[in-house]
Order: sequence, then structure tokens, then C-alpha cells
Amino acid sequence: AMAAERALAMATCTAPVNIAVIKYWGKRDTDLILPINSSLSVTLHQDQLKTTTTAAASRDFTEDRLWLNGKEADVGHPRVQACLREVRRLARKRRGGGEDAAALSLSYKIHIASENNFPTAAGLASSAAGYACLVSALARLYGLEEELSEVARRGSGSACRSMFGGFVQWQRGERPDGSDSLALQVAPETHWPELRVLVLVVSGEKKPVGSTAGMQTSVETSPLLKHRAEVVVPERLAQMMQHIRDRDFEGFGQLAMRDSNQFHATCLDTFPPIFYLTDVSRRIIALAHRYNAHHGHTKVAYTFDAGPNAVIFALADAVAEFVEVVRRSFPPATNGDQFVRGLPVGSAALPPELEAAVLTEPVLGAVQYILHTKPGPGPQLVDDPSQHLLGPDGLP
Amino acid sequence: AMAAERALAMATCTAPVNIAVIKYWGKRDTDLILPINSSLSVTLHQDQLKTTTTAAASRDFTEDRLWLNGKEADVGHPRVQACLREVRRLARKRRGGGEDAAALSLSYKIHIASENNFPTAAGLASSAAGYACLVSALARLYGLEEELSEVARRGSGSACRSMFGGFVQWQRGERPDGSDSLALQVAPETHWPELRVLVLVVSGEKKPVGSTAGMQTSVETSPLLKHRAEVVVPERLAQMMQHIRDRDFEGFGQLAMRDSNQFHATCLDTFPPIFYLTDVSRRIIALAHRYNAHHGHTKVAYTFDAGPNAVIFALADAVAEFVEVVRRSFPPATNGDQFVRGLPVGSAALPPELEAAVLTEPVLGAVQYILHTKPGPGPQLVDDPSQHLLGPDGLP
Repeated sequence: AMAAERALAMATCTAPVNIAVIKYWGKRDTDLILPINSSLSVTLHQDQLKTTTTAAASRDFTEDRLWLNGKEADVGHPRVQACLREVRRLARKRRGGGEDAAALSLSYKIHIASENNFPTAAGLASSAAGYACLVSALARLYGLEEELSEVARRGSGSACRSMFGGFVQWQRGERPDGSDSLALQVAPETHWPELRVLVLVVSGEKKPVGSTAGMQTSVETSPLLKHRAEVVVPERLAQMMQHIRDRDFEGFGQLAMRDSNQFHATCLDTFPPIFYLTDVSRRIIALAHRYNAHHGHTKVAYTFDAGPNAVIFALADAVAEFVEVVRRSFPPATNGDQFVRGLPVGSAALPPELEAAVLTEPVLGAVQYILHTKPGPGPQLVDDPSQHLLGPDGLP
Repeated sequence: AMAAERALAMATCTAPVNIAVIKYWGKRDTDLILPINSSLSVTLHQDQLKTTTTAAASRDFTEDRLWLNGKEADVGHPRVQACLREVRRLARKRRGGGEDAAALSLSYKIHIASENNFPTAAGLASSAAGYACLVSALARLYGLEEELSEVARRGSGSACRSMFGGFVQWQRGERPDGSDSLALQVAPETHWPELRVLVLVVSGEKKPVGSTAGMQTSVETSPLLKHRAEVVVPERLAQMMQHIRDRDFEGFGQLAMRDSNQFHATCLDTFPPIFYLTDVSRRIIALAHRYNAHHGHTKVAYTFDAGPNAVIFALADAVAEFVEVVRRSFPPATNGDQFVRGLPVGSAALPPELEAAVLTEPVLGAVQYILHTKPGPGPQLVDDPSQHLLGPDGLP
């Protein structure tokens, strides 16, 4: 076939990170990565946080290879292999029917290069964007057009949610083979134009327990996690979808905070206990509650993943004031000029009664910087060939 | 009657603090102080931690008065009044039957003085000892001999457990009037002679949410607390009683740690969330787990109440080594000579492989001091009249 004769094919995609507002924690099948409960996330805009991945196949490649942020990495990683295998299986199935002009030999070795536009050390879970991007680039390479969240899930559970923009549900599914454990878009990123996201990057101490090991210990030892998955989450998921449909920030924010707290509660109920929140996280939480109490309603809502960084939701008109509150509470130790990054933030003066009610003794340098972003779209094809991360020789 | 003519009567008692190993958090009746779940505690020895209370009644007193640690306090406090009212009600009931030589007019005004032999600022819940001591002294004054944990409970829930020595269960009870919500001794303090307790007093920051307000918010907002009370605790209580009966330190310690963690998890699941554990508490927890992992079994077990101080259980032969581990992990900033208080602690050299496996970067001054104590008896009558906290004039 013509298709099988193409010597080198290449595709580049970008993909977003996402932040869960109803949290995923715990697998019922560790191999297929099937969760014990459904979850719901907001996809963040790729202008601020994205992964770019180029996948190339060539009859001249002698082995599969992988580069992450410019450094060669282990392409034999079981999760990378699972994604590769699943995409190839779907491609094979598709071609079973007949000729495909874009078809590429499935026996060719593959080169993959991937880069993040944000520091991986910042603790902003990059695996979701990474695997969503890998699967998107491979799908383009092999000419697949189907929904592939089930494949991305095999790389990293939450990666399936990064396969869509806006507001995304990862439904738990019932089938043992995981074929119904996939992501669904609840609403596109255009649905709630006023919604903003502030990532407060906290100065890290040492790396905590990784999520994969952590959630497995939680499933095995936490009686509260079991109850959360079976009873609490199904109720909350329905409520959260309604809040999003209604663009009800009060309801959305309250529930996001409660669910973040409950996730960290189940980590503490794990044995030995897991702590992702630090004293600084705790100060940010208290600050958000004082700020909301001062205003008499929910102006900001926090959520924390498996790390100390806070992700804050707010409506656009609250951003400038809250950023100033954060700046006054955690004055930058050094890089004062780069303290606020991403989307522009206006300046705001704090009314004296707000200062008195909300601010406490400032803690220098506890927040490294604030990244201002908003909901954004799902994976994107990069059309411009000059943007490929691999050269015509198939090397970075 | 002769009895009513006694001009001044006085009684002095001491009472212990207790530390729960199956935690109490949440009332089903805030007025009667009825808990949502049963709990189980260890009574600590009064040689190290005790409250002393003198109660006096006289026809010459013109008003009820109360002194706490030498300072006059509000005798009208509803909980003090509840204890006073209940003791008088029982005394009245008792006398209904006939003459009592020791009887004292129940219409006399009362003076009460109470002191702790430990700093109240240390966050070592003094209300349990305080109310147990108040009720014991009043009971002596009025010549009551019955079990009065139900009355002590009206002062502070956990005070009912301080009415007994050793290992004590506070049973939840079923009746709406609370008459079956009382303390029962599971085993006396002589039952487990090797058991030791180390209180690690952590340098405090600001006072957290008080327990009364905190647990009410938890009952109202935490879905996990409800599940804990209904499903998890009944199972754990039975297990814990068995571990105590068997003097099984492995089982006792593991369950104590799990239950402490779960209590703090329900605090985090409260909205707004409550944090009693700080980064220092977290370091102590991690240290205990590293120490146990190094030894391959449970040598020490932690439990934390509504504050950052750690209470560590250990068998006598592990104390010296673990104290040295704590001293090396949290070297005293100033009062090095008073770093270890209470029962004597031998010296121990740490094997190099233990140092390598257990110790990390030391954190100076994070632990103020260590108090070494053990299980002890319940409230005691002080026979020596020179120990009264009130003079013959009824004043401190």
C-alpha cells in the first residue's frame, strides 16, 4: 500500500493540565487505572501551562526512543508502552476495514519528544498534560479521529480529563475492562467566561509521597476513603455539575473547597498518614476563609492536589484585590518583579477595614509566585512544521 | 439537725488528666454533653500532671466564688453551675431517706479553689482534670459516695473519663437524658506496668479553634465524622479493649495512631477546616514511623488531641532510646537541662544504623520539653488539712 511506503511521518500536539474540583484518589484496578470514584476537573489554559509533544515514525528508526524536556528517558516505561500499544491497536482495528491514505506502517519504530512550558519542579502535576499530549500526538500520527480519553487514562488516570477543554467529568465506569471509564465534557471553556484561576506556587520542602503509591496505601488503609467514594462523591458530583451549568460561583467554590479538604482528610486517614498540605498551605486556606468572611460570600475558593501549591478560583473582578492580599500576606523574598505571571492583573488598593479583618503577620517568601490563568481548550494540533520538537532526522 | 449547724466544711481532692486513644469528637446533645460515639482513654499519673481542688461551704459565705490558679474566675459559668447543681441534687436525694451526720446545709454558699501542677498554656487539656476534680471535691464535701462520672461529664465531656484510673471507656449511651452516658474502668493502672507515656510539648503558635466550637462545626459539616461515629468507632472500640486486655502493644499502638489520624482527618473535613497538627506535629509523626520501621515493629505510638503536642506511648524499655531520638531530632534551643521532665529517663547511645535510618536534619527548639509519665489512678482525697487551697477564712 502507498501509505506503508511513507518514510517519515511526524505530528505535533499540545495538551493542557487540569485541576480537579471533585477529586480522584484511589484505583479499583491499578493496571487498567480504573478509579474508585468519578471526578470532575477544570482544564487550564495552554497559554500558561501546556505540554508539547512530537511523535515521529520512520522505517529508518532502529528503536523506539523518548525525550522529556530535552533529556532522553525510558521509552520502555509500562505506562508509555500501554498508551503506544492501545493507539496502535485502535489504528490496526481501523484499517482492518480497508485502505487508508494516511496509513503508516504500524511496525515502524517511533521517536517521541515532549516538553513543558512550565517548571516540572513546581509540583504542577505534569503527567496529566504529558500523557494527554502523547496520546493526541500518536493519534494524529496514525490518523485516528476517535475519542481517546480511555487510552490517555492508561498513561495517568487524570490524563483522560486533559483530553477535553473546559469542565470535564471522568466517569468511574462499571465494566471490568474499563471501556466505560472515560472523560466527558460537562461544558466547554467558553461556558463561564468570567472564571479565573490563580496558582500559588509554594516554596517546596522535600518531595512528599508520590500519588500512585499514596493512593494505593489510602485504598488499602483508609476507612474514610471508602465511604467518600461510595457515598459522598456521587452526591457531590451531581451538585458540582449543576453549579457549573448554573455558573453559580458560591456553590462551585464552596464545594470545591470542601472536596479538596476531604481528599486531604482521607490522606491523613491513610496509614502511615500522608500530608500534602504544609503550614503554608494551611495559612493560605485560613486567608481565603478570612477574605470570604470579610466579603460575606465566596469570592475565592481553594483546591490543593497532591502537593502544597494552592489553586485558587475566582471571578475576574475579584482577581486584582485577592492578588494584592496574597502579595501582602506572603511578600516575595527575591524576584518581586516576576511575582505575578500569566494573564495581566490590575492593581488594587486594599480598604483599611479589609486590611484589618483579613491580613495577619506577613510571611516572607512562603509563596514563590502567582500564575494567573483561566479555563482553556483541550489538546491542539500544531500545524506549523517549524514547531516540531524533532528534526527531519527524527532527533531533537 | 446537727448537720445543718456545721459552720465551715472543706474537702480537697486531686484528679488526673487523661489522653484518649479512641477519640471523642462531636456531641449529639450540646447541653447534656452527650457524645456521638464512645471513646477510650488512658489516665495519666498525677505525680506529673494533676489538678488540686478545694471546695468549702459555710453559712458565713455571702456568695459563691471560684479561684483558678490563684485568680478569681466566673463561678457563674454554666458548666460549673451544672456540676454544682447536679451534685446538690444528688445530695438532696440521698438525704431524703433520713439523718446524715456529715450533712451540710445545701443552701450554704460555696467557695472553690483549683490549681494545676502543670502550665495550662502547654495545651495539655486541663478541663478534664479540672471538672473531675471539682466534682470529686464537691462530692466529698457533701458526703456523696456514688459514681459521679455522669456529673463530671456535664462540666467537660472528657472529664468523665478522669473519674477513673488506668484505662477508661466513656460509653456513648442511648438514653436522651444521658443517664447511661458514663465512664467505666476497662482496666486499672496496675494492669500494664510497663506502659509509659511521653508528652512532647511543642512550641505553640497562636491558639487554634477551641474544642467545643470545633466539634460542633464538625458535627454540622463533616460527612466523614458521621461515618466515623456510626461505623468506624464501634468496631475500633471493641478492638482497643481487647488490645488493652491482652497488653498487646503492637495492636494498641497501631490503633491509637490510626484513630488519632482519623480524628484529625475529620477536623480537616470540617468546613471551614480545622488544623490542630502543625509542621512540627507532622515531623514527629514521620519520625515515629521511621523509628518503628527501623525496628520492624511498633516501639512507639503517637496520639494528638486538639493541639500540636504529641503524646507518645511506649513500653518502658524503649523510652531511653526514643527520648534520645527526639533530643537529636529537635535539639533544645535553650533550657537544655530541663528538656526531659517527670519520671527518670536513662541514657542511650544510638547505633549508627539507627541514626542513618531514623534521624534527619535536626529542627532546633521545635519541641520545648518532654514529660515522662505513666498510667495512674483516679481522683484522690487529700487527707492532710495543710494541703487545702483555702484557708480557715474560706479564702485562698
